[in-house]
Amino acid sequence: MDAANAFRDGAAYVDGAFVPVGEARISILDTGFSRSDVTYDVVAVWNGAFFRLEDHLERFERSCRTLRLSPPYDRAEIARILVQLVRSSRLRSAYVETICTRGVPPPGSRDPRTFENSFFAYAIPYVWIVPDASTTGTMDAVIARTVQRIPVTSVDPTVKNFHWADLTRGLYEAYDRGATHPILLDADGNVTEGPGYNVFAVSDGTLLTPAAGVLEGITRRTVLELAEADGIPVSVGPFGEDRLRDAVEMFATSTAGGVMPIVTLDGAPIGDGAVGPTTRHLRERYWAAHADTRYLTPVDYGDV
Amino acid sequence: MDAANAFRDGAAYVDGAFVPVGEARISILDTGFSRSDVTYDVVAVWNGAFFRLEDHLERFERSCRTLRLSPPYDRAEIARILVQLVRSSRLRSAYVETICTRGVPPPGSRDPRTFENSFFAYAIPYVWIVPDASTTGTMDAVIARTVQRIPVTSVDPTVKNFHWADLTRGLYEAYDRGATHPILLDADGNVTEGPGYNVFAVSDGTLLTPAAGVLEGITRRTVLELAEADGIPVSVGPFGEDRLRDAVEMFATSTAGGVMPIVTLDGAPIGDGAVGPTTRHLRERYWAAHADTRYLTPVDYGDV
Repeated sequence: MDAANAFRDGAAYVDGAFVPVGEARISILDTGFSRSDVTYDVVAVWNGAFFRLEDHLERFERSCRTLRLSPPYDRAEIARILVQLVRSSRLRSAYVETICTRGVPPPGSRDPRTFENSFFAYAIPYVWIVPDASTTGTMDAVIARTVQRIPVTSVDPTVKNFHWADLTRGLYEAYDRGATHPILLDADGNVTEGPGYNVFAVSDGTLLTPAAGVLEGITRRTVLELAEADGIPVSVGPFGEDRLRDAVEMFATSTAGGVMPIVTLDGAPIGDGAVGPTTRHLRERYWAAHADTRYLTPVDYGDV
Repeated sequence: MDAANAFRDGAAYVDGAFVPVGEARISILDTGFSRSDVTYDVVAVWNGAFFRLEDHLERFERSCRTLRLSPPYDRAEIARILVQLVRSSRLRSAYVETICTRGVPPPGSRDPRTFENSFFAYAIPYVWIVPDASTTGTMDAVIARTVQRIPVTSVDPTVKNFHWADLTRGLYEAYDRGATHPILLDADGNVTEGPGYNVFAVSDGTLLTPAAGVLEGITRRTVLELAEADGIPVSVGPFGEDRLRDAVEMFATSTAGGVMPIVTLDGAPIGDGAVGPTTRHLRERYWAAHADTRYLTPVDYGDV
């Protein structure tokens, strides 16, 4: 089996070695698993270039610092590992994840300050939360009724984490109700986010998105920057589900799909049920930005 | 290397095979890791016998059911695996964990209903949250100020889970404040639990422990049963930190240590700062129960 085959489904970096992603494993004693004591980040490769790599690596560093995790590599070394992963996989469009875990407790110890932190990374084919999200894909959303988003007083959502039990419960609720994409509220009834995506609405000519209680997504940031550049009024702050029902457009954002139109909420159409002009515009602008060299870190695939 | 050496640090069951625990690994793509979409249970082996094995397996089954996880083995098969793990490790006292994860997504899928659930188990030497907790060990606790327990409206704490970011944050706060064991409150100021333990207080001659927002620990249950049998008044319900400060005794309970006296809270002594008579009594009764055959499932170590 040549390298092309071995890494066809993706490449991973584990314990200092590059391996096929299917062989990438973590000890079941690592508290990154057994206590979900871990942070991560995801950056996309599109048409052979990383999109906003530095922004993702900067956020990853900040997340590690907040959790007092010290990955064994600095930013430049991590960037080199990620580039090598994409080269090995030969993927022109990829979903590239970096992970830092607290690590395996020394025998008998329960003091996380004494654990050696571990670093993992992998590149797999680009993941779409919604199929064909860059062109025709749309989402049918529901407001989750059976679960609330974990509050910031318990877990900081700006530190990217694997605490998804609430989001997964919302996902099952969405399926049970004939939809596929939940939006969770907080205890005050404010809109937060869904499993892997931020939420936007267009109401009274203004683009709304929650300020707090959510991941500060890089795709969210890109959309806010593009809207500002194009003179679209933006309001970043708290709002309830009523504002979603009054909205003429809605969409979700994620590194795994970009700008994804939401066309129904709890079974009722948003606006006229079609993808609205602001959403269409921002989706086009988002994908056009993937040719903007200011955002790009091209991968040298060499002669592979 | 003979089997005794290979399994000296513990034995694990992974992908249908028994392996040394240090070799037990899970795919980094398993959403049990990457979404913490997982439940688990821990049962102790003491002096060659499982303690309340059926109760732990029943809770594990219930947790799986709530999360819509289907482990590939039934209760009797899991029990046989656990016995074999303890036999292989030759451990007379062990910490035995069962784990069921959602599993690895099929390529391109994000629908957890389509994943094949995975089962893992391992036995390692008995873990003490507090050294010598059965005889002389004590805890210095603090009420966490920087973090609240994840609420039941977001994650059900009666389904044993790895969502420990709040508990870990509390642990770091305790270290920062010169203590080792945090107790987290909920948003209403009610006492909940700490990392891996339930909390009890003795106040006005009554044994208090929270009813909701906490794991329904088997050690907690054992203590409540023993207290009832001995005619100690018990109150299971909500209370705030003031009740802890007024308490004459406090202790924590866990499968990893039993009944563990808490002798200071936020630096101030509880009662006279010594282990009180009710705590001492229940600690003795708890360990004596480990010779009560009604609770025991002896391990046949055979000729190993």
